[in-house]
Amino acid sequence: MTTIPVWVTERRRPRVVIVGGGFGGLYAARALKRTAVDVLLLDRTNHHLFQPLLYQVATATLAPTDITAPIRWLLRKQANAMVLMEGVTNIDVERRVVVTSAGREHAYDYLILAAGARHAYFNHPEWESLAPGLKSIDDAIELRRRILTAFERAEATDDPEERAAWLTFVIVGGGPTGVELAGMLPTIARHALVHDFRRIHPSESRVILLEGGSKILPAYPDALSEHARRDLTNLGVDVRTGTLVSDIGPHHVAAGEERIHAHTILWAAGNAASPLGKDLHTKQDRAGRVLVEPDLSIPGHREVFVVGDLAAVVSKGKPVPGVAPAAMQMGTAAAKSIRRDLEHRDREPFVYRNKGDLATIGRYRAIADFGRLRVTGVLAWWLWLFVHIMYLAGFRNRASVLIEWAYSYFTYERGTRLITGGGSGGVSKQEPVPGNW
Amino acid sequence: MTTIPVWVTERRRPRVVIVGGGFGGLYAARALKRTAVDVLLLDRTNHHLFQPLLYQVATATLAPTDITAPIRWLLRKQANAMVLMEGVTNIDVERRVVVTSAGREHAYDYLILAAGARHAYFNHPEWESLAPGLKSIDDAIELRRRILTAFERAEATDDPEERAAWLTFVIVGGGPTGVELAGMLPTIARHALVHDFRRIHPSESRVILLEGGSKILPAYPDALSEHARRDLTNLGVDVRTGTLVSDIGPHHVAAGEERIHAHTILWAAGNAASPLGKDLHTKQDRAGRVLVEPDLSIPGHREVFVVGDLAAVVSKGKPVPGVAPAAMQMGTAAAKSIRRDLEHRDREPFVYRNKGDLATIGRYRAIADFGRLRVTGVLAWWLWLFVHIMYLAGFRNRASVLIEWAYSYFTYERGTRLITGGGSGGVSKQEPVPGNW
Repeated sequence: MTTIPVWVTERRRPRVVIVGGGFGGLYAARALKRTAVDVLLLDRTNHHLFQPLLYQVATATLAPTDITAPIRWLLRKQANAMVLMEGVTNIDVERRVVVTSAGREHAYDYLILAAGARHAYFNHPEWESLAPGLKSIDDAIELRRRILTAFERAEATDDPEERAAWLTFVIVGGGPTGVELAGMLPTIARHALVHDFRRIHPSESRVILLEGGSKILPAYPDALSEHARRDLTNLGVDVRTGTLVSDIGPHHVAAGEERIHAHTILWAAGNAASPLGKDLHTKQDRAGRVLVEPDLSIPGHREVFVVGDLAAVVSKGKPVPGVAPAAMQMGTAAAKSIRRDLEHRDREPFVYRNKGDLATIGRYRAIADFGRLRVTGVLAWWLWLFVHIMYLAGFRNRASVLIEWAYSYFTYERGTRLITGGGSGGVSKQEPVPGNW
Repeated sequence: MTTIPVWVTERRRPRVVIVGGGFGGLYAARALKRTAVDVLLLDRTNHHLFQPLLYQVATATLAPTDITAPIRWLLRKQANAMVLMEGVTNIDVERRVVVTSAGREHAYDYLILAAGARHAYFNHPEWESLAPGLKSIDDAIELRRRILTAFERAEATDDPEERAAWLTFVIVGGGPTGVELAGMLPTIARHALVHDFRRIHPSESRVILLEGGSKILPAYPDALSEHARRDLTNLGVDVRTGTLVSDIGPHHVAAGEERIHAHTILWAAGNAASPLGKDLHTKQDRAGRVLVEPDLSIPGHREVFVVGDLAAVVSKGKPVPGVAPAAMQMGTAAAKSIRRDLEHRDREPFVYRNKGDLATIGRYRAIADFGRLRVTGVLAWWLWLFVHIMYLAGFRNRASVLIEWAYSYFTYERGTRLITGGGSGGVSKQEPVPGNW
């Protein structure tokens, strides 16, 4: 296990290609700042995304620009790093090249694959356009468009049944994203939209959270899951566990025995790792995640690392969860292994340091799990706020951003309720009704 | 001219339908706050747009949410106003109804048509996708995407000629929008992007402003136009007056004798009034604007008003320009005429009060024309800033927004450089080049 790759002994600087500018890729690049390598980071977008707050863009609390920053700006002071906005389409581990959507090939000595995950629709790809998921900033803008448009349609229609369907929001999946979306929707309706409409009362809106398993937030201890469920119920969310979705149409969800009439269906039920994992020709788990060695490299290719949501890693006997801190730690660890190679030292196995799990429920509640210490309610929410402000500050690199962020978060009544783009979903059914407003 | 519409003598409250939530429509609605009418404002978007700062979104200085606010939020405290997000497709002035994209009909007693203008391509509709214009927030997001993507492509290519073409920005039209765009582009390149790239130096970029007439900013006195031209030239903009565009392709503009190799072409050359003007079956000028009576109503239909960019109005013997203050004043005047009708008083002719014209050149220069008083340079720029902050404050309704806005404007280095959406234009040509970054 201690064979040193041949280029370590060569004269030229090794080339490290990083695929993906999320937490894994960005932290890997940053950790290579003082290493004698050339770094090329490839991402199909121009921005790093602060994904933990993505649901706040989807629910029109924050603006897209609040939680994104250009990757090349984040790495502007790192002279050994270059950024190209190119999506990677193929990886050839034998020739050691990645091929991009621009038709270009980039050769590497080391590859750090941090391509993340997309939504999985469990053999129902046709559900994707009916029930969009939330991974990218474009996804969030689309969800925001659908949610805000639903209230507009409800105001416009004269048919009570239609109005009810426009005011019904179904979220499929009771993990952190589903819970966070479900918790924000009643808040939008109650606090922000209540004065703006004339014919509907936004508090008439229904939010239904469907979870196939026996509890929401399955990664948390039972007591905390139960607490979160109670918090959601108090906010007016109809939480249904043990309920499988058997069908989704443009205007309904079939959940268990019931057919729910709803125009807005949001998907938070499953992840599928990036298809690039296949190109590595090594073992993957059911979700398509690549089974990696303890040092995060793949079997037979010590020069290829997989980090973040695309990696299936075991640390201290437990699978490492697909969360931002894990991705950051993996990115940093892969970079460290490269540095150790160059210093002719042995690599170390990756160890995940879980600093605790946090999930928010609405605007002022959360649950926190720090192993022995468990916190709920408003205190947990303040913890959540503190942790996210800390990270966002580091990422945006300016203290004053905090003020701005806090301002938008607390005042709410802002221009963030912007509908842009013109997809088809969610506004497809428009019944002609004679005007008698 | 003093016949009172029949419904003024009826018992029920007259219904005023306003088409368009821009400056004309919004100010008309607001001015009807204390009038005994029911107001219905229709707009195909959910937001009012602070259009004078739209070019700053296109050039990634401000975020889309900074200059938009939901129309229904702006009118939330006005109990007699209702807002629907519906585009109007037809107007039937005989039956007194408007028909919307939702297939709905809305009857009116008074109609205030404030549907504005779009770009005109002078019998070359095929140029629209090649050289997009700037009217809506979606337009601005598209322009921002093209401008930022151009720098990304320039960094990625190995072909010097291609790189030059990606770094060449051609703006067609030397009116205020063209001048404002042209003035911002060198600033982006120099101040914001200079540290972020490795292979290109963004100051290599060329900005070419093409104007068919003999001077830029034709509405201004010669001395001020000349001053603006000098300011632009000092910023590095290649200003070419008397230059007609004869052809536009995906990768070139034919301007006069020259064929300019460029991937990013922006259109600021002409306006065409909304096609809804045709439905009024009355006289229109060449640009499709409706020739209105002195009280802004149309001949034969005292109950139909046209305001804003769609109206061709003469005040004090001069045509009223298509600017935001004129639209506001017209909207308010139409509302006033309705009120006078209800009070059985004669209407008054519309008089445009020109408070002065302002145009910015880059980040710290402007020209101002107050009739006898003319101001240029930094002083004019401070005036411009003051006026826009005043208006934006009223519109956003919060003093602290000023701080936020000033902060984003002056620091620049923000997440506003976000590329969202995935059109095809501007990134269509991607040459396969072997990777040797």
